Amino acid sequence: MTPTKRMKMKMRKRKTRRPNFDCTCRLAKEVCQLKAVVNAQSKTLSKLVRQMKDGCNKDEQPKESTLCGLNPCLKCLQPDILYHLGLDTETTDFPKVFGDVRFVCMGGTPGRMENFAYYLMQEIGLKINAATKLRDMAEAGKRFALFKVGPVLCASHGMGCPSISILLHELIKMMHHAKCQDPVFIRIGTCGGIGVDPGTVVISSEAVDGRLNPAHEILVHGVSVQHASQLDEGLADDIKSCHDPSKDNYETIIGRTMCTHDFYEGQSRLDGAFCEYTPEMKKTYLEELQNQGVKNIEMESLALAALTSRANIRAAVVCVAILNRLNGDQIKTPHEILAKWEKRPQVLVARYIRKVLYFHENDSDWEEPDEDECEGEAPEKGATPQGGAGDTQNAPPEEAE
Amino acid sequence: MTPTKRMKMKMRKRKTRRPNFDCTCRLAKEVCQLKAVVNAQSKTLSKLVRQMKDGCNKDEQPKESTLCGLNPCLKCLQPDILYHLGLDTETTDFPKVFGDVRFVCMGGTPGRMENFAYYLMQEIGLKINAATKLRDMAEAGKRFALFKVGPVLCASHGMGCPSISILLHELIKMMHHAKCQDPVFIRIGTCGGIGVDPGTVVISSEAVDGRLNPAHEILVHGVSVQHASQLDEGLADDIKSCHDPSKDNYETIIGRTMCTHDFYEGQSRLDGAFCEYTPEMKKTYLEELQNQGVKNIEMESLALAALTSRANIRAAVVCVAILNRLNGDQIKTPHEILAKWEKRPQVLVARYIRKVLYFHENDSDWEEPDEDECEGEAPEKGATPQGGAGDTQNAPPEEAE
Repeated sequence: MTPTKRMKMKMRKRKTRRPNFDCTCRLAKEVCQLKAVVNAQSKTLSKLVRQMKDGCNKDEQPKESTLCGLNPCLKCLQPDILYHLGLDTETTDFPKVFGDVRFVCMGGTPGRMENFAYYLMQEIGLKINAATKLRDMAEAGKRFALFKVGPVLCASHGMGCPSISILLHELIKMMHHAKCQDPVFIRIGTCGGIGVDPGTVVISSEAVDGRLNPAHEILVHGVSVQHASQLDEGLADDIKSCHDPSKDNYETIIGRTMCTHDFYEGQSRLDGAFCEYTPEMKKTYLEELQNQGVKNIEMESLALAALTSRANIRAAVVCVAILNRLNGDQIKTPHEILAKWEKRPQVLVARYIRKVLYFHENDSDWEEPDEDECEGEAPEKGATPQGGAGDTQNAPPEEAE
Repeated sequence: MTPTKRMKMKMRKRKTRRPNFDCTCRLAKEVCQLKAVVNAQSKTLSKLVRQMKDGCNKDEQPKESTLCGLNPCLKCLQPDILYHLGLDTETTDFPKVFGDVRFVCMGGTPGRMENFAYYLMQEIGLKINAATKLRDMAEAGKRFALFKVGPVLCASHGMGCPSISILLHELIKMMHHAKCQDPVFIRIGTCGGIGVDPGTVVISSEAVDGRLNPAHEILVHGVSVQHASQLDEGLADDIKSCHDPSKDNYETIIGRTMCTHDFYEGQSRLDGAFCEYTPEMKKTYLEELQNQGVKNIEMESLALAALTSRANIRAAVVCVAILNRLNGDQIKTPHEILAKWEKRPQVLVARYIRKVLYFHENDSDWEEPDEDECEGEAPEKGATPQGGAGDTQNAPPEEAE
């Protein structure tokens, strides 16, 4: 065959080949990530220029965290043992290991948070050495899972306020010891919706208890103490703004979240082991919740809102509704659909983190592939992004400050 | 060398060899297990003789479980989905798979309960095929771990009442659907002691809240509902009677258990992220608890006691104190010691289960090796007992009914 003939055949082959969507998808992602790095670099450049103008005043290391209202006894604890995280201030250098943390993301199960950590790593353009994997930093505590992806901690919190409150006490102490600056805490999870379509993402405006009281009650020395359970409105708006109606084929709304301490009777379900009310009483109660602006029900937001606001930490709760409680109690949606829905709060929060880390206020000309097109693109648990090495702690975010 | 010389050398070698404690220990265990099997067989023989005398009336299958007070709507749920256990009555034949359950043991972490399941398997003389391992039957639910060893379920419950209450609702529904007969529920765990030596095992006489009220409070339709949190006195005594003061170098006591919904402020700790009371106020509160007969503090007993007693299920809480709260808050005991202490409730409960399964009332002439001698004998996670095959569901317990 002559070279001309071979070329012609190649050309024909190219024309008849179906468009390679996977490839396009990967390229689109790569472009997106490169734009993020360019933005990060331009931020660093501006910062350096500013420093040179100011006479090269080197940024001083912060001496304390920005948290406030904490336990005055903390300074006397040498070491402080974060028992359930299996960490202590003697064997771990908190400022060195956790000092760069800017986001703390929490979700129910260890598996979901490990997957989220790998997904986030890809989304914010970080890489780890191909021969390594993310380590569960709280493994020794045996209670929670804790992964660190650059400036983001991903932790599992179990179920219910007592469980997440243990995690929060210890993470807040960690932020304090590590001298973290303005960390943002976000819970991503699932919930029951009230009058919303299953698959809708609900960002909580505030957390209320079963009496619609916006306070988390604990007994201290046998006396009831109530802590306000407000959440950060600006943060909720910022996260909501990462929803793109032209691409995301689901709704993202902001509304009141009811937090209960019991999944069955506390949420007026008819399918618990016990049920001492009628379907009519349930209907009346859920409709009353709906009238009062409650959009969803879950089990951790009260403790999260109360403990973070006490420490002056901005926090948000972003949950996907896996059923509409006005239509039933049992979760019958197939696992594949649930898994897809569970990713929605993750995608939204990853976009928000990327935006905060890499983009200037008016810089929003980046594009990203659709949820459905690139569903299979997130790396598998244990997989590492292609072609790169280096520790997450030394990757782009440091440049992007 | 002549054969006589070789024999003499062997004899000398035998005489100088240090006594093989491991071997003795293993033999003692084997004797113990064989005795158990002999007892089981004699029980079966008596039963058969009784049946022959009665004219070979075959035992009829029970038509319903012995539980009472359950949700009347349960019969309408076809299928009933135990969402957090990842099981449902359509794809699992509950009477076939779980109908033989007589004990439900629960503990905080999946790892501890998996280890307990293997330990129990050995202690009650069950074996699984050497090519198999115990399967986490609740893996699909992603929230709890659930292992089945013959007539015993071993489940992890997470931390706090909301978490264990989800598990209990679903396990109680499981017992109901499986038509289980008089199942006994036991929580094994760790706790803070009040005026007791660390390492002491505390069996709860009753569970009380932070106001010393023996009731579990939940909000139903915004209204506070209180359920009595009594535990079974006879069961507590039976478990305590398995403690052997001549062998066990620690105390086992029965006392009141305070259950809190917060680990730090709710238990008057000085080492939480927040602390709005003085060390003196803490001291006064803990001493008041001691005066009121409170022996330990943990976070799940209220829900366990209330939910089981509502269903007429006998239940117990057996916890080892990992510190004496009158002396401090932080858990500084080395991991190896903690691991040893954590086994104590397991050992006691395994003895109790073995006794109920295999021994007649006045038959207590069995011996077992000391805790210290045989510490390393429990099989590793994933290991199978030596030289045996067969499924746990078809092993001795069926003969031992």
